[in-house]
Amino acid sequence: MTSYIVKGNIIHTPSIHQFEVVENGYMYIENGKCQWIKNELSEEVIKELNISISKIDEIDDLSKTLIYDFKDMIIIPSFIDLHVHAPQYIQMGIGLDLSLIDWLYQYTFRIEERFADINYAKKCYPAFVQGLYDSGTLRSVVYGTIHKESNEILVDELNKKGLCALVGKVNMNRFAPINLMETVEKSVQDTYDFIEDIKIKNYKYIKPIVTPRFAPSCSSDLLQKLGDLSNELSLPIQSHLCETQREIDWVKDLFKEELTKEKGTYSDVYKNHSLYGNQPTVMAHGIFMEPREIELALEHNVFIAHCPTSNMNITSGIMPLAKYIDLGLNIGLGSDVGAGHTLAMNQVIISAVQNSKLRHVLYGDRKLVEAEAFYLATKGNGKFFEQVFKGEKIGSFEEGSSFDALVIKDDHPLMDSLTPIEQLQRFLYCGNESSIKMRFLNGDIIR
Amino acid sequence: MTSYIVKGNIIHTPSIHQFEVVENGYMYIENGKCQWIKNELSEEVIKELNISISKIDEIDDLSKTLIYDFKDMIIIPSFIDLHVHAPQYIQMGIGLDLSLIDWLYQYTFRIEERFADINYAKKCYPAFVQGLYDSGTLRSVVYGTIHKESNEILVDELNKKGLCALVGKVNMNRFAPINLMETVEKSVQDTYDFIEDIKIKNYKYIKPIVTPRFAPSCSSDLLQKLGDLSNELSLPIQSHLCETQREIDWVKDLFKEELTKEKGTYSDVYKNHSLYGNQPTVMAHGIFMEPREIELALEHNVFIAHCPTSNMNITSGIMPLAKYIDLGLNIGLGSDVGAGHTLAMNQVIISAVQNSKLRHVLYGDRKLVEAEAFYLATKGNGKFFEQVFKGEKIGSFEEGSSFDALVIKDDHPLMDSLTPIEQLQRFLYCGNESSIKMRFLNGDIIR
Repeated sequence: MTSYIVKGNIIHTPSIHQFEVVENGYMYIENGKCQWIKNELSEEVIKELNISISKIDEIDDLSKTLIYDFKDMIIIPSFIDLHVHAPQYIQMGIGLDLSLIDWLYQYTFRIEERFADINYAKKCYPAFVQGLYDSGTLRSVVYGTIHKESNEILVDELNKKGLCALVGKVNMNRFAPINLMETVEKSVQDTYDFIEDIKIKNYKYIKPIVTPRFAPSCSSDLLQKLGDLSNELSLPIQSHLCETQREIDWVKDLFKEELTKEKGTYSDVYKNHSLYGNQPTVMAHGIFMEPREIELALEHNVFIAHCPTSNMNITSGIMPLAKYIDLGLNIGLGSDVGAGHTLAMNQVIISAVQNSKLRHVLYGDRKLVEAEAFYLATKGNGKFFEQVFKGEKIGSFEEGSSFDALVIKDDHPLMDSLTPIEQLQRFLYCGNESSIKMRFLNGDIIR
Repeated sequence: MTSYIVKGNIIHTPSIHQFEVVENGYMYIENGKCQWIKNELSEEVIKELNISISKIDEIDDLSKTLIYDFKDMIIIPSFIDLHVHAPQYIQMGIGLDLSLIDWLYQYTFRIEERFADINYAKKCYPAFVQGLYDSGTLRSVVYGTIHKESNEILVDELNKKGLCALVGKVNMNRFAPINLMETVEKSVQDTYDFIEDIKIKNYKYIKPIVTPRFAPSCSSDLLQKLGDLSNELSLPIQSHLCETQREIDWVKDLFKEELTKEKGTYSDVYKNHSLYGNQPTVMAHGIFMEPREIELALEHNVFIAHCPTSNMNITSGIMPLAKYIDLGLNIGLGSDVGAGHTLAMNQVIISAVQNSKLRHVLYGDRKLVEAEAFYLATKGNGKFFEQVFKGEKIGSFEEGSSFDALVIKDDHPLMDSLTPIEQLQRFLYCGNESSIKMRFLNGDIIR
């Protein structure tokens, strides 16, 4: 790979409120980065780049050809998932009638325990990685389990498939089954070892992320050591925040000795332990953030991963998404599998739009348009990766951006006269993995 | 076909609040009707029925064998869709960012106009019917368009596929594009002709249903003639009710001369024109029913088709479903394609559960469990068909019920130790047409 042109109906969201569409456009990619998009090729460009046209089924060898003509297919930025639990892929869709606690103990923890056995990881994680790939999610921010060795299998599988991911060894030393609780020392040591393992392997697209499961799972001591580790090694952080009112009350009770009247929020717990914005930080959910928490998130550039499918399945509520966007918060989208029941980010995008429509009816909030939710799952989430992979531009086709793309064709026989945006809408609402004909990450075809 | 036994994990909902499960059960079907379900076959039964065991791939000829062993697959009642617009299958997923009026004029009406050409119907309706079949929806209550000839193609296609349906020629004489408006005379005459055509063709599973699009689309005169027609020919009725607050205000204004303080609701408009419960009646949506309307629906045994995916996409709101169920209203579920973006009733079931969970958080309403929403899409909807196909029992595997069934296998490799209910949950949340291995309607395999 050095350089080539892709041709098709190009759609992306350089800014949040609307799609940019170039119908029958040409996009030039050099060393994996988008250079320009044009409506047509001038004589000069054709001459300068020595362009020859090939067919899609001949593009195995990228060195041979210069234009890949995807005809009337649409070319969009590939999806990014800002919050997903790899082991929970196994339980996806199961037990969601249960209360959160019963669901955790009957399914989530019981399954996570099994990852003490690396053979279980070897059986399950390839399926999870394939699921990401199938869904067109080429970058993701992933929770593993507490188990160092199984997490190493997870990153190996992601790397083998050519996907980009930030992967966390989960830390917890309380409020979990005995087999899932670590001592502070082992939790921290295993985290160091897992990070070291990733470093040694020198993966191109995979980095570790510090992952206290959520505040209640970690003692103050463990939280602090993880915060220190994050700062010492300049590593990003992920955790959960304000998913339900009950959880918020619990956190405030658990940490009441260190919270004050002025600095008394759930977010303050993370902040108190250097786990809030010193390094790139993403918090899942954030449905019920207090005014101070919104200020803190803005001030510290913390990302909130909105997970609408999960928020419905777990009976959490509806995030005031439009309000958060309009306040300028860094918002992204996550599948939150297995509380979310699908890895497909097109479905998560639709769910975000639908939830915003319900808030519109119920509270008069502004409705999201599809472009905004699409932006969140591509460029919005990409901004978090930009913080971690410094110097990269990720999530759109703007000049200099990593060429991460999906080529989409919906074979619906009644669709012959659709505009590119209508084709995209069909894919977002009704499409699935079979609609995705090709996947590019940083200019490379992923198979 | 005379009689046979199916073996597998049998799940249905004879009552609303819970699943009845017979693991590795045997169900005996005679002349298309369920006779009994047993945990095992006694010597006597084996002898009496002269049972021989065959394999799934041998069951083409039902006369040859007596037991169809579906192993660890689950066997569930097939789905029923209580509200779907056949022509809108074409626009599914498209334009849902628009306001309702723009959506109607830019897509819905423009597409419906094209059905004046029967060649368009011949192109589109087979795809719609295939879509129903693929989704496991073997019975449905369907809106066509105003066009008699295209509607006849629709019923022909449904019949060819072996599906059961109530199909309505849509009536409207105002508030639509000029090409979609009829005179009262033509509207009524074409309705008679369409009904007569169905009668002549003597379809086994297809009947007509009187279909004023919704109150605003029809003048008082047209509504009355349709009400009279319904009573004269003993035909069921479908229309729309209380989908948005704005629509309710509009209806009250349009019909203000005939509404009184005591009898002043949207429902009263239908009732005033003999379109409300004299014959089996189903109204789509009913999100914002007033107390009097709930009383009327209870009194007149009127069905409400809940369409949660549509209610989100169209920014309608969240129906107080649990409250309606607990009050004893006849509730069913509909896909409402194309405002709904999927024909898959498993997704509509999940959407109903998710919406009820949101209402729980927002208003403290009781949450629905999956069994309830599953009941709505099978036996709940089946009750409407029972009113129309008198003497039939439809929607569960209780004694005497029509054997309408789906055989489901989810090939998820990590699922080996799931209970039948967990398998069903996987299908409801994550499954699609490829999970459905066989379809039975009234005991016949549908291919």
